[in-house]
Amino acid sequence: MKMKLVGMVGLMVASLCYAQEGNFQPASTNVLDAQYPRVDSASRVQVRIKAPDATKVKVNFWSGPKMDMEKQADGFWTVTTPPQAPGLHYYAINIDGIDVNDPGSHTFYGGSKDASAVEVPEAGATYYLPQDVPHGQVREVWYNSSVTSSWRHALVYTPPDYDKNQAARYPVLYLQHGGGEDETGWTKQGNVNFILDNLIASKSAKPMIIVMANGYARRAGQATAQPGGPMGGPGMMQAMQQMMTTFDEDVTKALIPYIDKTFRTVPDRDHRAMAGLSMGGMQTFVVTFNHLDTFSYIGGFSGAGGMSMRGGPAPDLKTMYDGAMADPAAFAKRVHLLWIGVGTEEPAQMRTGIQGFNKLLEDGKVQHIFYESPGTAHEWQTWRRDLKDFAPRLFK
Amino acid sequence: MKMKLVGMVGLMVASLCYAQEGNFQPASTNVLDAQYPRVDSASRVQVRIKAPDATKVKVNFWSGPKMDMEKQADGFWTVTTPPQAPGLHYYAINIDGIDVNDPGSHTFYGGSKDASAVEVPEAGATYYLPQDVPHGQVREVWYNSSVTSSWRHALVYTPPDYDKNQAARYPVLYLQHGGGEDETGWTKQGNVNFILDNLIASKSAKPMIIVMANGYARRAGQATAQPGGPMGGPGMMQAMQQMMTTFDEDVTKALIPYIDKTFRTVPDRDHRAMAGLSMGGMQTFVVTFNHLDTFSYIGGFSGAGGMSMRGGPAPDLKTMYDGAMADPAAFAKRVHLLWIGVGTEEPAQMRTGIQGFNKLLEDGKVQHIFYESPGTAHEWQTWRRDLKDFAPRLFK
Repeated sequence: MKMKLVGMVGLMVASLCYAQEGNFQPASTNVLDAQYPRVDSASRVQVRIKAPDATKVKVNFWSGPKMDMEKQADGFWTVTTPPQAPGLHYYAINIDGIDVNDPGSHTFYGGSKDASAVEVPEAGATYYLPQDVPHGQVREVWYNSSVTSSWRHALVYTPPDYDKNQAARYPVLYLQHGGGEDETGWTKQGNVNFILDNLIASKSAKPMIIVMANGYARRAGQATAQPGGPMGGPGMMQAMQQMMTTFDEDVTKALIPYIDKTFRTVPDRDHRAMAGLSMGGMQTFVVTFNHLDTFSYIGGFSGAGGMSMRGGPAPDLKTMYDGAMADPAAFAKRVHLLWIGVGTEEPAQMRTGIQGFNKLLEDGKVQHIFYESPGTAHEWQTWRRDLKDFAPRLFK
Repeated sequence: MKMKLVGMVGLMVASLCYAQEGNFQPASTNVLDAQYPRVDSASRVQVRIKAPDATKVKVNFWSGPKMDMEKQADGFWTVTTPPQAPGLHYYAINIDGIDVNDPGSHTFYGGSKDASAVEVPEAGATYYLPQDVPHGQVREVWYNSSVTSSWRHALVYTPPDYDKNQAARYPVLYLQHGGGEDETGWTKQGNVNFILDNLIASKSAKPMIIVMANGYARRAGQATAQPGGPMGGPGMMQAMQQMMTTFDEDVTKALIPYIDKTFRTVPDRDHRAMAGLSMGGMQTFVVTFNHLDTFSYIGGFSGAGGMSMRGGPAPDLKTMYDGAMADPAAFAKRVHLLWIGVGTEEPAQMRTGIQGFNKLLEDGKVQHIFYESPGTAHEWQTWRRDLKDFAPRLFK
């Protein structure tokens, strides 16, 4: 009887603690068996790190809160954030002034380094998670680029049944990462394969091949133009233009021929799309408008081209991209989809630029889609949603 | 004349500095454009990190030197190591008592976290580097395991021309990572794809499929057994045995059927090999000897089974693995290759264990290959060399 009472009290205490502590679970982005960081159903994130000799420890979410952590008696520092937006959030732990990775989290290449990130689930959203549906493959390939004179690494999503239906040929989406990221971003951060698996299973999107290349294409000796790199000012702009030109050539003269030779594609413009996020969106607009004989679907995720983001002369539809959109009717016949999107919580400059481009297209009666991701910042949940809206519109 | 002299002096000074500083180059494992860590032709590694407020900074190579770094006037800390063995070395930077990643290095999953590593080139060795030869693909696949009741991630190397030669079927090597690593290790750290590309191009190895699964197979609720995990002592042993059993079942009941269904394999024991490093080597010996009807080639890289590494009764060839090797002639007919290897600089316990197993096999006249990697530790250069020796012996 006594034991039973003790047991009941124990249960009550446990239940009280549970209520007080929230229902925190280790993040899906953690390394095997790491208990922190963890997330509760209110989307609060708890971070914990051992730093017994540190004097000041903070957590810095790149697009979210920067908070002081509190030292515990056991040498661990902890903090619980307010509720966060759903999605994958890059973050660092700052120990006495130095940003370091959280050993509990897997790393994801962003900000030009392998950085920590934590996944906050979106209630009710399964479109980007592995479901019990047929799965495609993501293939690492290496192509010998005559443009950069180097072996270049790319990732290629092939849809379920690609290997089985040997007679089938598939349309191709070229999909680019953002600045400071690389070709692994759309799989590791973006879950591109699960998004497509699910869209294909529900017959919302056509089976397609998705090619993810490295956006930092350079000839030997060509300077870098990556964020955080040593360049800045005019040198930075020149380096970016050089990189843009090299990337354009690499995509059209090396990558596309390699893909069309290696995979069972439908190698024509009606079955070729390109999209990208942020820097990749800008690259997409340059490459596709330079090569409208090669692409007929265009997507800009938080990185639509054409708008001057930092002032400068207002763009003019009559002249921009060599006047490709000057005749909206002709453009609508030629380009099957012009798609732009932005998150409602992105920095004002980004929002203003893309909303302004949308207005320019609307005013000019250029057929297009404009999508706003509610409540999300310049982060991966915006781009996952973009892809979910964009991919079903392709190759219909 | 004056300018010319200044120029010459400048050149001399530059040349003197060059000699003094060595010919350091950024490591191939660095993130894009990171100048540190860097390596010179004498295989010395220079590490550099900004930590202006730190009081003590060290670099800890897991299998190499642990050295104090020196603070510079600009807030950076630097150190130059003595010459290092060739290969990929995991390391951490310790800032005031806390091990952190080097933001200049890519991360590699090892020690149960995404850890920094630096590649030290091996003079004259190109067998594990991308060469101008046909390249295979490395494919990410997801299989629904009825054993673990979960979607499991694996990587599959398909040889060059796999997609072209639709009539061809291929033998399969199952290749496992070590403890604290995962299925990405053999590609990211091991360069398995380049090793095989080069061996296949020179006709030293048969074209084959290589399957790399995650060795931490667990049923729901099953405890972990990873190094550094919360378990220890008897609980650790029990968890390891549980994991071993689950892994054995996952490989034979879920993974192999999935691979044989999904890829153009030759699905019989004569065309199926298994090997692994360290923990993966031990797993290989358990799985293959449990299923000699399924496998006929066996490789243990720094992790041969059967020897008690921590004392205990001496193994007996008559009884070990249910007496599979009791009749050496019968065993040699049945098992086409028994291969074990170890690096000469590995910890004494590892060396002694594997050398002892080699002696046991020799004394018992069990046909096998014993390979010692000169000058390398319990690290990836040992296992790359192992694979280079092992793969050409398969499927002949």
